[in-house]
Amino acid sequence: MKKNEIEIIEEIRKRFSFPKNLGTGIGDDSAFFRLEKPALLTADLMIEDVHFDLSYFSFYHLGFKIVSVNVSDIYAMGGKFLAFLLSLGLPQSISEEQLNDLFDGIQEALEHYKGHLIGGDISKSEKVILSGFAIGECDKPILRIGAEPGDKIFITAPTGLSSAGLSLLRGFTEEEKRQIKETKDLSKLNHLDEKFGFSVRKLIQRHLMPQARNPHRFKRIAKAMIDISDGLLIDLYRLCKENALGAEIYLARLPILSAVVKAAEYTNTDPLKFILSGGEDYELLVISKDERAEDLGLIPIGRIIKEEGIYLNDPGKGIIPLKPEGWQHF
Amino acid sequence: MKKNEIEIIEEIRKRFSFPKNLGTGIGDDSAFFRLEKPALLTADLMIEDVHFDLSYFSFYHLGFKIVSVNVSDIYAMGGKFLAFLLSLGLPQSISEEQLNDLFDGIQEALEHYKGHLIGGDISKSEKVILSGFAIGECDKPILRIGAEPGDKIFITAPTGLSSAGLSLLRGFTEEEKRQIKETKDLSKLNHLDEKFGFSVRKLIQRHLMPQARNPHRFKRIAKAMIDISDGLLIDLYRLCKENALGAEIYLARLPILSAVVKAAEYTNTDPLKFILSGGEDYELLVISKDERAEDLGLIPIGRIIKEEGIYLNDPGKGIIPLKPEGWQHF
Repeated sequence: MKKNEIEIIEEIRKRFSFPKNLGTGIGDDSAFFRLEKPALLTADLMIEDVHFDLSYFSFYHLGFKIVSVNVSDIYAMGGKFLAFLLSLGLPQSISEEQLNDLFDGIQEALEHYKGHLIGGDISKSEKVILSGFAIGECDKPILRIGAEPGDKIFITAPTGLSSAGLSLLRGFTEEEKRQIKETKDLSKLNHLDEKFGFSVRKLIQRHLMPQARNPHRFKRIAKAMIDISDGLLIDLYRLCKENALGAEIYLARLPILSAVVKAAEYTNTDPLKFILSGGEDYELLVISKDERAEDLGLIPIGRIIKEEGIYLNDPGKGIIPLKPEGWQHF
Repeated sequence: MKKNEIEIIEEIRKRFSFPKNLGTGIGDDSAFFRLEKPALLTADLMIEDVHFDLSYFSFYHLGFKIVSVNVSDIYAMGGKFLAFLLSLGLPQSISEEQLNDLFDGIQEALEHYKGHLIGGDISKSEKVILSGFAIGECDKPILRIGAEPGDKIFITAPTGLSSAGLSLLRGFTEEEKRQIKETKDLSKLNHLDEKFGFSVRKLIQRHLMPQARNPHRFKRIAKAMIDISDGLLIDLYRLCKENALGAEIYLARLPILSAVVKAAEYTNTDPLKFILSGGEDYELLVISKDERAEDLGLIPIGRIIKEEGIYLNDPGKGIIPLKPEGWQHF
């Protein structure tokens, strides 16, 4: 790239202007930001060849996703998302077009979530590194702790889409991957649906460009909450551990998307692996005993129990203890 | 390492407890944090083989430094440092001892700066990645903008120590590097001072374990401020550009540490390169026209002028326009 660091930062600053009444955004040593309520603060990292592969991931989708994964953690506390900082590690070989695509994706996401880019850092790096930091606010957060035996466990949508999408993406031809990278709006990939005979694009979209689930409709009835980022089981396990309690999941109640089952067949995988341990869906897991939960769109999948551990209630096989598998690095 | 991610996070959480009256620290989707004033937010990234080299950098010093470089940006706004988030990329080969050292360094720094670790992320990675985010607060920030022609330019200490230290470190024997990595308290390296005949440890210490400069004594007289992280010249250039003004530096007033001159001789470098363009000193550059500045410990090195650009006033050669060189990645 021909631009130097000062020029890059100058362009980013012009693109992401910050309303003066809120404070100072990009361009000083720190951002200065007036919050109205107590702050929510979270960080999430994405590294090339660990979290993504540039053979199928465009810089546009990466930009959108790094915002979504961070906003998801603000939403999981019942908070309002406000602002974002991004530290970038980029190979010196990156083109101006790729850098523009990255910031297009970030801008698109920030418009969607109604937040501002207010700072960050930029460095050369062998691999692409996206290190995001989100700021939100709320009066009283919904924590992981707060569940009691007998509470119901809900999720906000079927899970497994992202990991099913990823397993398909990995098997795509170079030509198919190139096409996906060139398509900003992934809902336009209908030729892929036709080729496979099921909604492939829905799965791919969840993986490449997930949208964090805003809890504003149901947060008032949530006793505890966590986002499903590493996998339904492992995130449920984390929530239960925080409460020194356990959970029983009803297999018959788990929402199972037919596209996930078909992707599982296609990639020779157990669909439950995607659904229970897939990760990266960025939906929410909500604990409540409120009668209105289902009317508010929440899907009941189980209940909180006294005994620690996660158990699957399988109508055919009885009650099976599950290992909390999911996305773990170490 | 034998520990899994959940165990690592559990240990970090125990080590970095968070006072309940302030909010919720590590262990939920986001940290929940009550600030008393408007927030200051900043991000700074350090990547192996770009910002540091593990042949001479211990994990302990890395932990201390990633906090310092972030706190420096809070101090550069005249703010009070409060809390820190850290996203880590770590090779799976990292040992428990190295991980402990890293968190020892972070803890040491947080005790020094009186702040809390309240969150972050952890991922495997080929190279070590430390992506820090600092949160501070202040009523009214001291910005880069605010300088006027005729204002004096001050720095808080001699510069060039860090880059002089780095150039020495790079030439050390494997045995010397190993010794430095094993010495947490670098002031104990007096045998190196004896060997070289000048204060090598002071330079090395500034590079490996810099301490951010707290501006509480002089911030009330500062009209504008920036931290010297990328080099005196380039950071002065940034501040001037923000004000659409220029600067004249008096060569005769530049504080020049004899150890920096000796390190320059030893490594066959122009000492002015270290002093003007070295970077990573984490001192502050302060713009003021207050008479009390020198009594408050500030060192005058030049003045703000109307004409844009940076000029060196050399008693021998006259006024020389300077190129703002320093640490730039692209």
